[in-house]
Amino acid sequence: MASMEALFANVPGRNLQFPKTRRTGFPGGAMVRLRRVYGGAARVRCGLIEPDGGKLVELVAPAGPEREAIRKEATLAGGLPRIKLSRIDLQWVHVLSEGWASPLRGFMREAEFLQTLHFNCLRMPDGSVVNMSVPIVLAVDDAQKRAVEGRDRVVLVDANSNPVAILKDIEIFKHNKEERIARTWGTTAPGLPYVEETITNAGNWLIGGDLDVIEPVKYNDGLDQYRLSPAELREEFTKRNADAVFAFQLRNPVHNGHALLMTDTRKRLLEMGYKNPILLLHPLGGYTKADDVPLSWRMKQHEKVLEEGVLDPDTTVVAIFPSPMHYAGPTEVQWHAKSRINAGANFYIVGRDPAGMGHPLENRDLYDADHGKKVLSMAPGLERLNILPFKVAAYDKTRRKMAFFDHSRPQDFLFISGTKMRNLAKNRENPPDGFMCPGGWKVLVDYYDSVASGTKIRQPVPA
Amino acid sequence: MASMEALFANVPGRNLQFPKTRRTGFPGGAMVRLRRVYGGAARVRCGLIEPDGGKLVELVAPAGPEREAIRKEATLAGGLPRIKLSRIDLQWVHVLSEGWASPLRGFMREAEFLQTLHFNCLRMPDGSVVNMSVPIVLAVDDAQKRAVEGRDRVVLVDANSNPVAILKDIEIFKHNKEERIARTWGTTAPGLPYVEETITNAGNWLIGGDLDVIEPVKYNDGLDQYRLSPAELREEFTKRNADAVFAFQLRNPVHNGHALLMTDTRKRLLEMGYKNPILLLHPLGGYTKADDVPLSWRMKQHEKVLEEGVLDPDTTVVAIFPSPMHYAGPTEVQWHAKSRINAGANFYIVGRDPAGMGHPLENRDLYDADHGKKVLSMAPGLERLNILPFKVAAYDKTRRKMAFFDHSRPQDFLFISGTKMRNLAKNRENPPDGFMCPGGWKVLVDYYDSVASGTKIRQPVPA
Repeated sequence: MASMEALFANVPGRNLQFPKTRRTGFPGGAMVRLRRVYGGAARVRCGLIEPDGGKLVELVAPAGPEREAIRKEATLAGGLPRIKLSRIDLQWVHVLSEGWASPLRGFMREAEFLQTLHFNCLRMPDGSVVNMSVPIVLAVDDAQKRAVEGRDRVVLVDANSNPVAILKDIEIFKHNKEERIARTWGTTAPGLPYVEETITNAGNWLIGGDLDVIEPVKYNDGLDQYRLSPAELREEFTKRNADAVFAFQLRNPVHNGHALLMTDTRKRLLEMGYKNPILLLHPLGGYTKADDVPLSWRMKQHEKVLEEGVLDPDTTVVAIFPSPMHYAGPTEVQWHAKSRINAGANFYIVGRDPAGMGHPLENRDLYDADHGKKVLSMAPGLERLNILPFKVAAYDKTRRKMAFFDHSRPQDFLFISGTKMRNLAKNRENPPDGFMCPGGWKVLVDYYDSVASGTKIRQPVPA
Repeated sequence: MASMEALFANVPGRNLQFPKTRRTGFPGGAMVRLRRVYGGAARVRCGLIEPDGGKLVELVAPAGPEREAIRKEATLAGGLPRIKLSRIDLQWVHVLSEGWASPLRGFMREAEFLQTLHFNCLRMPDGSVVNMSVPIVLAVDDAQKRAVEGRDRVVLVDANSNPVAILKDIEIFKHNKEERIARTWGTTAPGLPYVEETITNAGNWLIGGDLDVIEPVKYNDGLDQYRLSPAELREEFTKRNADAVFAFQLRNPVHNGHALLMTDTRKRLLEMGYKNPILLLHPLGGYTKADDVPLSWRMKQHEKVLEEGVLDPDTTVVAIFPSPMHYAGPTEVQWHAKSRINAGANFYIVGRDPAGMGHPLENRDLYDADHGKKVLSMAPGLERLNILPFKVAAYDKTRRKMAFFDHSRPQDFLFISGTKMRNLAKNRENPPDGFMCPGGWKVLVDYYDSVASGTKIRQPVPA
């Protein structure tokens, strides 16, 4: 059986056995070692796409005197003012600290916020443009603002009041929530999950600045070893001699239609002359809405997909993308693509209605299903990225497997929506043979069982 | 007395008398001749800024066989499907036909619409970027869509069913009103004037394509001679040997604070080494909301400002900008600036809260007063334009005139808001001496008198 470990190792590992005692089924494998060994600056192979801004931003202080000096300043009694981070704020610190948002060096100041809202891109000092479509901002309330005023730096602390980072050269500016929401989501309808979770009750001010992060952000949920930074991913792609990296963003279980698409993409890249295209299978690991399958179950499901050989471990890297989910459709898909450039991907697979959801009030999708790929293909700062639009896959009843839709015989195809899939799993029914590998399906059924039986679903929690 | 005519002639004309019988007080003067003489393609002086896309778009068919062929096709009984233009649609045809929106060649297709909504700019085939922040679109309803389907061109007709233009290579796509409004205005609050006027009841589809406009758009309201096209303005600036053109967009009466700013700007440009900076005083002439002073009264007021020597006719060109008003703040100010590039302006004066208004539901301004100038200074495609932020002018009680606000003696200054100005004029009271030239003030008082007495205010109507 293939293992997740094999995805991160250079040797095929189809016969490796996982220690069954680990809750998640994932070993602390090759990437843990890689993370440990990894020294800081990436050895970027000339074959990998350059990060936005030319240099990958890394904001975690190097272990040693520099880290200790920052920690000391951050913990000094009677020292800097403190701002408590929410769970999602901390996910953004994580995102920023590893350079997914390069060239951003911290939470946005007003100039970056306005450019993001109005242009979905930032102009660099040399006149070039990088994409940046979702605001990465930190809200504070009136009292926090007063406590901070006149200071040029503050300490950011986690839920347990442990210092996480220092925010320097701060700038405080108005948080016009309505305008932020309207320009980011294209609607102000109540019921947008990220809005309700992070904006509605947030403070009326935003605080921007540069981050000095004390140490790497960890969640201690058994999945940290799969949270590879852009630098670590670049190192891995380099080690594998990738001459093309194609990224697949997802926040759902992988069915055989997805797998077909990924396999087909690799085939097409080989036909284009690439010798060793590597797939970055990159589930989103930050905040998701309540009815999405939680990360830990998705990771179990992805593991089965690789164990059962649906995807080839030798040409696949599975890692967790630490960003929270906005569900902002065409605006957000740019962020999903841009952040993968920073991780070394030069091809990006875009599906139907990426980062979309139902309209919170109306009986329709919030976004036009084609706008995501159209906007992505025209987005400023993403010109270097090759966009690969999803081909439509559906269940071919005659061949009893997922296949690309054939317009000449529509009657042979069955479309299985996410809702239908979830309902089947909830009811412990099986999907048609060939829709998903049996092990992967069982994970889903187990998940919905655990929900039904009231088992607490373990969500990642801040370290 | 200075005259409006003098603004358009090379000879000082301070002693010219207007024929008093003309309702508007404006003669058919030099620019009418210029318009007649003007042949088509602009002789662009190397001193003038290049239009967006490198070449000024002009969509009016040249008089002669080409125009007659288009007219014939457009009038043929049983010929092309017809779409009736609203008053504001016609204003957009006017805007497009003269190249204010260069390089746009007609109503937006979906690719342009999406880029405008998401990026406020369009990518050109050569990879360069031009600014384009407001959607210039034509809505059709379901019945119109059905009538047009399968055709590749349609005739656009005015309110009297007279053909105005042919729209070619058409593309029909969804008009997601909520998303359009949210991304353009940063709010979806009911009560946005342009939205209520043109979007709320509009069709659920947009139709894009290239325009062949049969003849120049006229309104026959006595003001057509001041509706100079970008080509005509370029010709005029060239004739005047302008080595800098600074544009002042307005939709309000000119008070002496505005005049001070314009005069001061010219002084600063001279200090910068320009030899002959010319002011483009450019009142917006398309749709405005009900409580704005109508165009005809504003033009009378501007005339007085020049007659009474508050602005120098020798270095000022007054013309009407035919665009409708969105009241979309930082999004719209980009359009106001970009369109003036196409008319040859390389300096743009931006005020406090440009294109702003009160929030329709909340007791606050819709936009942050500083966002307009900030967004403008960062907008993609406007890098070539020099942005001149407004200095704050107020009434200096000690000097009994409008002056730049002096922070060392705030108690000496009186801020006279638009609301206060309107209330004074409505009540036939006088503002403080030196706030506005007496003739200009009288026009305002007369206007509010005419409103109070029920005199019908003449608004421009489609030709």
